[in-house]
Amino acid sequence: MTDPIRPTDDEARALARRLLQEETTAALAVLRGGAPFVTRIALGLAPEGGPISLVSDLAAHTQALRADPVCSLLVGTPGERGDPLTHPRLTLQAGAEFVGRDDPGREALAAHYLRGHPKAKLYIGFADFHFVCFRVTGAFLNGGFGRAFNLTPADLSL
Amino acid sequence: MTDPIRPTDDEARALARRLLQEETTAALAVLRGGAPFVTRIALGLAPEGGPISLVSDLAAHTQALRADPVCSLLVGTPGERGDPLTHPRLTLQAGAEFVGRDDPGREALAAHYLRGHPKAKLYIGFADFHFVCFRVTGAFLNGGFGRAFNLTPADLSL
Repeated sequence: MTDPIRPTDDEARALARRLLQEETTAALAVLRGGAPFVTRIALGLAPEGGPISLVSDLAAHTQALRADPVCSLLVGTPGERGDPLTHPRLTLQAGAEFVGRDDPGREALAAHYLRGHPKAKLYIGFADFHFVCFRVTGAFLNGGFGRAFNLTPADLSL
Repeated sequence: MTDPIRPTDDEARALARRLLQEETTAALAVLRGGAPFVTRIALGLAPEGGPISLVSDLAAHTQALRADPVCSLLVGTPGERGDPLTHPRLTLQAGAEFVGRDDPGREALAAHYLRGHPKAKLYIGFADFHFVCFRVTGAFLNGGFGRAFNLTPADLSL
């Protein structure tokens, strides 16, 4: 069988970074009782560019990430026209790090996040909501049929 | 903390079934080296109503499912307007079963699948493409903030 993975080029790096910058949600896969469990979360970027989210302690994915931080995110929403599998999407492999309420970087993170998610101001102050930073360890870009790339954190400028 | 899970009602069951019937893709979370790994796949339904996909042996998710069939699917695409986290989405917990090329049910499955995915006729005959049936063991419906339900396969008529 032919290896579908192409050598990484600047076009692939730019496409992956654009997906991270433009998308406001992601599918988050966590481990729950040893099995994968995938939900939708809000997606933002930290001032330094890494993916973050604002999650509630009431959510099953939050409880799972606190028990085991290993996770994966799928970034890239199919458009409403054309074959949805030709729309580019990015898989991230990551570890989750929660940001404490008294973390000195939280205020800057919150201000940056609210610019992309203005409606989050309704609940960003709730006691059960926490920021989580995803430390990316690897990535896989599918730019449509026959256009697949394995990316490093450096390819994503992370 | 308040339990965000509501008692399941007919409205929740109907919403979950509608998502399964209307969506043509899903996020698929598998285990890869013990860690979650989430990608986008095509989503169809078998004649009897269960979720299925048509996947390539070249894809990492296919290789992962053959090594360990435990998986999860996220069904429900955020619309282009409004807060994407208010759009309903359904998490399925499932086990994957591959359909052999000589399986007596494959022809009916393929004909049914092609009605919802006519472009798949371009590759449905390729030797590396296989149908996979997802045997649902449990489900979680998020109908928007404060509208969460745990569903059984019976709630999904499966």
